[in-house]
Amino acid sequence: MKRVVVEKKILERNTESAQRIREILKNKGIFSLNFMSSPGAGKTTIIEKTIEALKNEIRISFIDGDLDTDRDAERVRRLGVDVVQINTSGACHLDADMVLKALDKVSLDCDLLIIENVGNLVCPATFDVGADKNVVILSVPEGDDKVKKYPVMFNVADVVLINKIDLYGVLDFDRDKVLKEIKEVKPEAEVFELSAKTSAGFDKWIKYVKNLIRR
Amino acid sequence: MKRVVVEKKILERNTESAQRIREILKNKGIFSLNFMSSPGAGKTTIIEKTIEALKNEIRISFIDGDLDTDRDAERVRRLGVDVVQINTSGACHLDADMVLKALDKVSLDCDLLIIENVGNLVCPATFDVGADKNVVILSVPEGDDKVKKYPVMFNVADVVLINKIDLYGVLDFDRDKVLKEIKEVKPEAEVFELSAKTSAGFDKWIKYVKNLIRR
Repeated sequence: MKRVVVEKKILERNTESAQRIREILKNKGIFSLNFMSSPGAGKTTIIEKTIEALKNEIRISFIDGDLDTDRDAERVRRLGVDVVQINTSGACHLDADMVLKALDKVSLDCDLLIIENVGNLVCPATFDVGADKNVVILSVPEGDDKVKKYPVMFNVADVVLINKIDLYGVLDFDRDKVLKEIKEVKPEAEVFELSAKTSAGFDKWIKYVKNLIRR
Repeated sequence: MKRVVVEKKILERNTESAQRIREILKNKGIFSLNFMSSPGAGKTTIIEKTIEALKNEIRISFIDGDLDTDRDAERVRRLGVDVVQINTSGACHLDADMVLKALDKVSLDCDLLIIENVGNLVCPATFDVGADKNVVILSVPEGDDKVKKYPVMFNVADVVLINKIDLYGVLDFDRDKVLKEIKEVKPEAEVFELSAKTSAGFDKWIKYVKNLIRR
């Protein structure tokens, strides 16, 4: 019982901080995306390719959440965008307070703020980080049963990216089942099928992101 | 500060319950394995194949932890072993109290108890569930950077199974790097490379499990 009460307080505080983030970003005209997925589904690679496709037209900043290393932050920094690393010291998700603090450090002279959450298909779903849209990535090798097994995550998704579609046909993956289950869990989610490796389907996703930008 | 204290108490209580599980299982001569991995790394498939290989020689019971569905429990129940499903109602890991309660329901007239944790490479690492050995599965499609990115999980691993090795060569995966990083994070971990799909490498793993059984 005590644990539940403490968790409720933590979540209430988180919602307040997320609201504060929304206000700050809205005032600056910044659109924000929060990327979530299992480890290895392709968050960093998709973010890299998205930045590469957009960086000549749109100013982008990046907040990277990781348990312990700055490997992902380094990969993205090489692309020339402003990067702030949040090291969660073992915590399984970003929370709004962490992101709020990172906003003091990252350049807000941008049109798009990309947040990469900790690789985890459970905990990040519960902690609103104040982003305009939650982007959940599901990769083909993870299997076609994940939507119903992790419904909380797919329920908070505004966008679902099905990644590694170059492995359609190579691995067992019932695409129709996955699309149907996404529709059941979150009917209004936008779904894009793509491969960060071969770039298949990437154009549609990039066009979609461009249309989101506020300016 | 308050949060840290509460977490410490939760973990202390968990350790006590884990100790109680160890005593119960030891008294009954049962050996136990706790399987942990990202979603889609192949926990259930490896467990199914392990049970198939052993069930004629060894009595096996199975405790399945899942967020919301009983899909995995059903898959294993078909093999004719006793199965108890723990539905964590959204919690991101099993804890020792959940497993302790499940011990009242599952058949303890067995030689091997298999526990399947929630698909998550972060949280389950912190909660000892009283198993004799923690088995962490890393699958090739997740990528070769996961050991250093999720060190807490690999640090609690007694055994690491590198799964989906039929995709060596198909996907970019630096095997030597992964083996080296496992050695750095947990030098004493036993490592097996296998494919639950093609059965490559499975013999060695099965032989290893057979040698663990107490009777």
